[in-house]
Amino acid sequence: MTDGRPRSPGRGTRLDPWFDSYAERAHGMRASEIRALFAVASRPEVVSLAGGMPFIAGLPMGTIAEATERLLRERGAQALQYGSGQGEPELREPIVEVMDLEGVEAHPDDVVVTTGSQQALDIVTRIFVDPGDVVIAEAPSYVGALGVFRSYQADVVHVPMDEGGLIPEALEEALLAMRAARRRVKFIYTVPNFHNPAGVSLAAERRAAVVEVAARYGVLILEDNPYGLLGFDGETTPALQGLNPDGVVYLGSFSKTFAPGYRVGWAVAPHAVRERLVLAAESSILCPSMMSQLSIATYLQTCDWRGQIKIYRETYRERRDAMLSALAEFLPDCSWTVPEGGFYTWVTFPDGLDAKDMLPRAVTARVAYVPGTAFYADGQGSGYARLSYCYPTPERIREGVRRLAGVVTGERELVEMFGTGGGGRIRGVLNPKPNQE
Amino acid sequence: MTDGRPRSPGRGTRLDPWFDSYAERAHGMRASEIRALFAVASRPEVVSLAGGMPFIAGLPMGTIAEATERLLRERGAQALQYGSGQGEPELREPIVEVMDLEGVEAHPDDVVVTTGSQQALDIVTRIFVDPGDVVIAEAPSYVGALGVFRSYQADVVHVPMDEGGLIPEALEEALLAMRAARRRVKFIYTVPNFHNPAGVSLAAERRAAVVEVAARYGVLILEDNPYGLLGFDGETTPALQGLNPDGVVYLGSFSKTFAPGYRVGWAVAPHAVRERLVLAAESSILCPSMMSQLSIATYLQTCDWRGQIKIYRETYRERRDAMLSALAEFLPDCSWTVPEGGFYTWVTFPDGLDAKDMLPRAVTARVAYVPGTAFYADGQGSGYARLSYCYPTPERIREGVRRLAGVVTGERELVEMFGTGGGGRIRGVLNPKPNQE
Repeated sequence: MTDGRPRSPGRGTRLDPWFDSYAERAHGMRASEIRALFAVASRPEVVSLAGGMPFIAGLPMGTIAEATERLLRERGAQALQYGSGQGEPELREPIVEVMDLEGVEAHPDDVVVTTGSQQALDIVTRIFVDPGDVVIAEAPSYVGALGVFRSYQADVVHVPMDEGGLIPEALEEALLAMRAARRRVKFIYTVPNFHNPAGVSLAAERRAAVVEVAARYGVLILEDNPYGLLGFDGETTPALQGLNPDGVVYLGSFSKTFAPGYRVGWAVAPHAVRERLVLAAESSILCPSMMSQLSIATYLQTCDWRGQIKIYRETYRERRDAMLSALAEFLPDCSWTVPEGGFYTWVTFPDGLDAKDMLPRAVTARVAYVPGTAFYADGQGSGYARLSYCYPTPERIREGVRRLAGVVTGERELVEMFGTGGGGRIRGVLNPKPNQE
Repeated sequence: MTDGRPRSPGRGTRLDPWFDSYAERAHGMRASEIRALFAVASRPEVVSLAGGMPFIAGLPMGTIAEATERLLRERGAQALQYGSGQGEPELREPIVEVMDLEGVEAHPDDVVVTTGSQQALDIVTRIFVDPGDVVIAEAPSYVGALGVFRSYQADVVHVPMDEGGLIPEALEEALLAMRAARRRVKFIYTVPNFHNPAGVSLAAERRAAVVEVAARYGVLILEDNPYGLLGFDGETTPALQGLNPDGVVYLGSFSKTFAPGYRVGWAVAPHAVRERLVLAAESSILCPSMMSQLSIATYLQTCDWRGQIKIYRETYRERRDAMLSALAEFLPDCSWTVPEGGFYTWVTFPDGLDAKDMLPRAVTARVAYVPGTAFYADGQGSGYARLSYCYPTPERIREGVRRLAGVVTGERELVEMFGTGGGGRIRGVLNPKPNQE
């Protein structure tokens, strides 16, 4: 992975006549560890604790279906037409109301609607990052963001977190080190609420410190907040953006509070940055889907979206509880974070276990997770895994953790027999190939 | 525009604290000339011959609304969920059938579904183009593609067209010159059918020659074909892709044959290229909208999409006829191409007229067009304009051309009074500021 040679992203035995034509950046693009898992996770016999799919079966589909029919009947010629690159004002206005719940100060003019917040990550990185620039990210960090940073040839510098999220002193240390090394830091990427994958939140009392350190070093903050409204106690913590609107680009999404199938997220940015984001978005997709935007605007108008978020919170709290009690029962030798919202817990395996090496055995035992290495830009994280509780039922979660415990027990016995780290050394023995790609 | 200084994309008087943080590529991103026009074109008193909005009012909205309601009721939990990065097989299969009408050889596995074909342009350029690489494009070329190439810091080399489209001998000359200059040419970008903006098509007998020249020089072809099924005689010309599937990346779109509001296009690429495109697409948007994809799959299953394309062809032919007869009546001193399909004609103004300088006067006279300079990477094109006939009614088209003729007459008188090119020299006199933006 670090031998400097470009990887073939797929079946490596086929000759690629265009291999010499690719851009430098293309050689850094590779399939994420999560991606290969999608094929596994979709097999019904596997309990997937890997994916981040929200549990949308509880949405009021009948009401949504009727409202959508009316939208197409009454305003079809608008809904099916091109729109503006920045996004429809009719949606940007309620987005401002949604953000108000978390203390984000914004006007609809400050909002850029994107194809999911993934596209917002892409265009922010596109306008800021030259190859070799530094992006600071939490350790661990969101795998989809790391993929974007890599595709723009950024160097990611990880800053440690603890139970209270990003550590302000460690952030300052990293910024100081970068300054001393004369490296250009373009932004600090953070998921402050119900972190993906770590399951922790940035403590309220640390937020001013993080904003202050960033401002003092003249570095922008990229605040990614898809889960902020999914706190199990129903409380929200003020966004970093509200503490310094000129120093933060804020990303939001309807994927977790409503549904991901429309691919609608957004960015809020200081005025001049926002203008450049619109240009980058237009270059990238011309304009976001009008049908998606008006569908969501209609949902916000006609459905009890606050009530739906409450339902989501209750659903995910029940599943989080199932996850935590199963972990306590079946994996007492592991440790894990206790999420107060969101989709994920971060599990630390006993010494000597390598979560990536163990994954094929887990899949054979019909349980899937994402190994910790996926969430680091630098190969760290082999002793960890992200377990998600958002999609399976509480019973399936319990069964999944039970299966995982069997795998961990087996793996520990092998490690004890062959020594710590043996899993890596005698790969052929310890890691039977999974029965899928 | 060529003074090497970055442009502020908007109100330049505001200070931008992040100005020094932008990536090199961001400085090349600027608002297209079409973009500023959107605000004008939407004012009801202006006849817009500028936009490329399809006339979708004739779609069977009732049927579409009902089918969409059923989709959400019966399969809502799938339609509103995340999907795969490559796109839904249920849509990739009928896409192969659609392409079969134009001789494209493809399997559903070869197709990548994108957020409009603009995203396909973006990811193809992303995986192939390093700063300073050459992209060959027709003269003139699609403004949205030129924006993408610029944002990846490509150097665009234009190759002339005539009534039969791209000239194979000129293409070879350009490739030879690039080889002599040791420049890396990454691909040849072409819109072979009903060209945007030129309104011409690549003659059937030239297609093999273009493919052969590209193959001989080892250069990929990027074939962009949004209009191929909109030929007024109902005939199609075989795609370049069918002549050499390993040497062509083919782009298609539902924006003109169905509706742009879903933002669904696609790319077909040789196997290894396709795998990299999927990675780039995932990095860019994670996955295309499942709701959009299933909506279109449903439309293709439940509606007479071939019949709808026939309706589009007839609508646009009637408007093309209105455009051509108005041009003959009101602008006898201009010349123009005679499109056999698609949305656009390319008008050559009398010597001495500058279409960009003239635009503010045209807007004042309540008619809008896109000046030719928008379609060149190098500042050429001031004597031309793209007129589109896709959206306004025949009566409005006639009225728009009549207004344009008044502007041209006035402009010619001024040019005769002040000399050729005078428009540029005494800008303040000849070009009153438009009363917007």
